[in-house]
Amino acid sequence: MSSLSAFPESVFPSQPEPLTVMGGGLVGTLAALYLARRGYPVEIYDRRADPRQLSKSTEGRSINLALSDRGWRALEGVGISEQIQPVAIPMYQRIMHDQQGRLTYQPYGRENQAIYSVSRDGLNRALLDLAEVNSHISLHFNQKCQFVDLPNRHLVLRDTLTGQEQTRSFRHLFGVDGAYSAVRSAMQKTDRFDYSQQYLNYGYKELTIEAGANGTWRLEKNALHIWPRGQYMMIALPNLDGSFNCTLFFPYEGEHSFATLQTGAQVQAFFAQVFPDALPLMPALEEDFFQNPTSSLVTIRCYPWSVADEVLLLGDASHAIVPFYGQGMNAGFEDCSVLDDLLDQHGSDWHTVFAEFQRLRKPNADAMADLAVYNFEEMRDRVADPRFLLRKKIESKISAQYPDQWVPLYTQVTFSSTPYADAWANGQRQEQVMQRLMPHIQSEADYDQPAVQALVQQELANLAY
Amino acid sequence: MSSLSAFPESVFPSQPEPLTVMGGGLVGTLAALYLARRGYPVEIYDRRADPRQLSKSTEGRSINLALSDRGWRALEGVGISEQIQPVAIPMYQRIMHDQQGRLTYQPYGRENQAIYSVSRDGLNRALLDLAEVNSHISLHFNQKCQFVDLPNRHLVLRDTLTGQEQTRSFRHLFGVDGAYSAVRSAMQKTDRFDYSQQYLNYGYKELTIEAGANGTWRLEKNALHIWPRGQYMMIALPNLDGSFNCTLFFPYEGEHSFATLQTGAQVQAFFAQVFPDALPLMPALEEDFFQNPTSSLVTIRCYPWSVADEVLLLGDASHAIVPFYGQGMNAGFEDCSVLDDLLDQHGSDWHTVFAEFQRLRKPNADAMADLAVYNFEEMRDRVADPRFLLRKKIESKISAQYPDQWVPLYTQVTFSSTPYADAWANGQRQEQVMQRLMPHIQSEADYDQPAVQALVQQELANLAY
Repeated sequence: MSSLSAFPESVFPSQPEPLTVMGGGLVGTLAALYLARRGYPVEIYDRRADPRQLSKSTEGRSINLALSDRGWRALEGVGISEQIQPVAIPMYQRIMHDQQGRLTYQPYGRENQAIYSVSRDGLNRALLDLAEVNSHISLHFNQKCQFVDLPNRHLVLRDTLTGQEQTRSFRHLFGVDGAYSAVRSAMQKTDRFDYSQQYLNYGYKELTIEAGANGTWRLEKNALHIWPRGQYMMIALPNLDGSFNCTLFFPYEGEHSFATLQTGAQVQAFFAQVFPDALPLMPALEEDFFQNPTSSLVTIRCYPWSVADEVLLLGDASHAIVPFYGQGMNAGFEDCSVLDDLLDQHGSDWHTVFAEFQRLRKPNADAMADLAVYNFEEMRDRVADPRFLLRKKIESKISAQYPDQWVPLYTQVTFSSTPYADAWANGQRQEQVMQRLMPHIQSEADYDQPAVQALVQQELANLAY
Repeated sequence: MSSLSAFPESVFPSQPEPLTVMGGGLVGTLAALYLARRGYPVEIYDRRADPRQLSKSTEGRSINLALSDRGWRALEGVGISEQIQPVAIPMYQRIMHDQQGRLTYQPYGRENQAIYSVSRDGLNRALLDLAEVNSHISLHFNQKCQFVDLPNRHLVLRDTLTGQEQTRSFRHLFGVDGAYSAVRSAMQKTDRFDYSQQYLNYGYKELTIEAGANGTWRLEKNALHIWPRGQYMMIALPNLDGSFNCTLFFPYEGEHSFATLQTGAQVQAFFAQVFPDALPLMPALEEDFFQNPTSSLVTIRCYPWSVADEVLLLGDASHAIVPFYGQGMNAGFEDCSVLDDLLDQHGSDWHTVFAEFQRLRKPNADAMADLAVYNFEEMRDRVADPRFLLRKKIESKISAQYPDQWVPLYTQVTFSSTPYADAWANGQRQEQVMQRLMPHIQSEADYDQPAVQALVQQELANLAY
């Protein structure tokens, strides 16, 4: 068998090799669906219980994610997008809430361009349902990866219910087991493996805005709400049941921080002062605040992502990012699209597929990690600045007038498949242009002045991309 | 006991608490000597065998290190510098060997300023001998740290000879167990621990220049020899027996790389072409090249370095760097001096000592890591450039003329106790000055021209440090 594996399947249409996917989360299950479509038998192992066996009482309340174009495209590839559409809530704009409860609005893109609030849990269940009925895929839950023996291609799994260990061999292993990946840990012990884990000094806490009467939404439904406060912020994403999932991103230490909010009264007083329009909508605030965990925010980078034709890391296992651009899941889903394209090109030459995957994808993952941290600063601080919002409006005008020459950074990341690294490079050039233009612009109307128009045309002529 | 530990010993002269040092290498043993001087009982555990029990046949041939001022100062603190002096060979200059075997010379500092070639093994034995006779210290070899239970303050050690495991409790644990620290691994599993390991695309190989007749040196003894070749280099440090330890720093992959030198004939031909004056002095070249390992070069950064008053990392465990500035051991030794200063200030308030240590020392460790990579570029590439060497001479002249206003970067790092971060910041300012000055200078003589002198004075007036 192994002597044939250097040839594409089309040359030697051998029996497809079995594939092992460690991780049955969003990206692992989607990757398995892509691989199964090619006829490979796929075993999925996950250390957690089958989420479909758990109580559904928390559905609609679990963490929400923002699904955008890259994610939709990857879901379309396995024909699941129609199934997700009805449970995804389009968010056409950011709505900023200031400390007096006044609102400002910033569309995410052109009309009808939206990011979609989806339940992580619901999406995972839908993907697992598809995997369950796929005859090429077998699902194994409660299987914790204890050890990966890379040279001998076997792994040790412990059943978390019975405590029994089993050793399984593998031909090709996909490590899709998240930010704290066991597969990556095994690779990290090999020589010359670059690795970093970097935490923000911020934690996050999940909170809830209750539904109104009859499941109505007490804030604008089709928007992502932000309470930007400079050094911290709260956001809210809509649920189908009328509630919103809120997330408070807050320093661990300092004057206003998790360290200083220790009692219910302190939490109430703080929210009354800084989130006054949200507080009345959050009757469970104290309970949420003290019962939900404070979670940390990590960026993980590593390289290489593969070992010969043995192992390939996908998703958070190789590139966990902070959540502020809403791209963590989308980037992982795009991994599946890129892998699929490479399998089109190189067949079952796994060595080439794995090597090409990491070569193509690593710069984009690094750029996305930078973008995610950058967007945190924008969301918690800059969106509260009228000059920044004016700048965004001027950018929209430039983009509307010269759509081929100016695609805003957010649009490139969220509504295109432009590689993240290219988007980031373009965005940095646009940033410089805007820094030169804005001193000449005091209002939206100024954009139409001949002198400003001439400046814009000159800048665009210099922007060669 | 623990209720007293918030007070300095001088206030409550309680029984000193026992301390645990994981790692009996250079820095671990020196740290133990410093701690024992204050009356603390110290247990040292090391996973390796006692190096003093091993054959001495390789002495004088083991890896050499460059001991400089920071290291000497730390050794003086425990009264061992006089003992090391006779076996340390001063190196007053770099001697560069070009591809035709022509030599150029670059003094390291002023007359009598030298870095010292010492045997790592010899130095470690000397430190262990001192620890052995110290009644406060007990040494335990062949004890591999399997597990550190941070909350419960105990660790599991496996005797590598008998295979037996023992559990030991600790009050305060010093993790001085090197770049692949087991203590740090335990900390890495806690939340919000920043960590990175970054490898160069270069490996290194230890080689040997043989002694001449009667133990004479076949190259200038009191120098560090460099064969800079742009993308790679070889260096040589003198041994007491007339031989030199050579190290080839070489890419893993590429045209000239470990990957392409696969046979004895290839190695001979390559050395004949690029290191022609060294080759005749290296009769064991082929044997060395194929029997010695190719070792990787890693930079390790992490934070925090401490857990409350439980654990503190020292030396390579918290800040492993590449060897190109000759500061790895010196930085680790300086850790011991800084720790000792803090114990003077804060007594046995370990929580404060550990917190202050990491606060003070982390920026300096980061700067030294950057400097070490920077110096690799200088050694393998820039020292072969006549313009660079002219610039170094002009810098020496400025420094000689204005010693209070201009201390060269190398001198700050190597011959001073200026914090590394300050040295690096100063060095970057000096770099900018030299970039402005050098276009006006074509030869050493130009320095004395009134126009150049005026420029120098103007630059120094602007350099406020």
